[in-house]
Amino acid sequence: MIGRLNHVAIAVLDMDEALKVYRDTLGGIASEKVAQPDHGVSTVFIELPNTKIELLEPLGENSPISKFLERNTQGGIHHICYEVDDILAARDQLVANGARILGDGEPKIGAHGKPVLFLHPKDFLGTLTELEQA
Amino acid sequence: MIGRLNHVAIAVLDMDEALKVYRDTLGGIASEKVAQPDHGVSTVFIELPNTKIELLEPLGENSPISKFLERNTQGGIHHICYEVDDILAARDQLVANGARILGDGEPKIGAHGKPVLFLHPKDFLGTLTELEQA
Repeated sequence: MIGRLNHVAIAVLDMDEALKVYRDTLGGIASEKVAQPDHGVSTVFIELPNTKIELLEPLGENSPISKFLERNTQGGIHHICYEVDDILAARDQLVANGARILGDGEPKIGAHGKPVLFLHPKDFLGTLTELEQA
Repeated sequence: MIGRLNHVAIAVLDMDEALKVYRDTLGGIASEKVAQPDHGVSTVFIELPNTKIELLEPLGENSPISKFLERNTQGGIHHICYEVDDILAARDQLVANGARILGDGEPKIGAHGKPVLFLHPKDFLGTLTELEQA
């Protein structure tokens, strides 16, 4: 079912500080910062040769990463995202196996403009896991 | 400096349960389980088209992932590992930038038989970050 690792998302308190680490210190190639008000975050992608790191900064008052950053005051890895060929078939197979999908179970359009779902961390080794239509 | 994402490591309490998730439910291709007594863990690699997931189970009494699993009782993402062309040059450049290396600062031979270093999570966005000689 799972294909490529699309990205690893790291939640950060301050994008400028995060860019000092990932662009200036680690030498990563950083995209422009993009506000994604529908998702309550601003994003920067660090392009690696085989995948990417998604830096997430809270945007607005009800950012979905705010609670995570209250628990992880230095930031931290927020989720990982795998590509799947058919997100509805993947969802149905996971649900048949007893796994829980977050929200209403219907794919939403994610930060890359493709349908995504988030799987319940308790069913996936304590790891918030995103599936994205390839 | 950083090149490919070599792997994402997920610490797990029980490898059999982890394989149910990653091999049976998510359909990943799993390696054999290998005991790594020098590292205090047993490992299974899930091979993805572009990178791999390293599942880590505690081995022995002083496993370096035991404390993490006390805090994260469902398991969770433990670290990420980037490849670098020259690990000593990378280390020296990071130290010159004020970053801290864990341990004595000398590369050790990691689970893949290559020199590795771990960087202090407080200097890398709350994320335990491994560098591996490519």
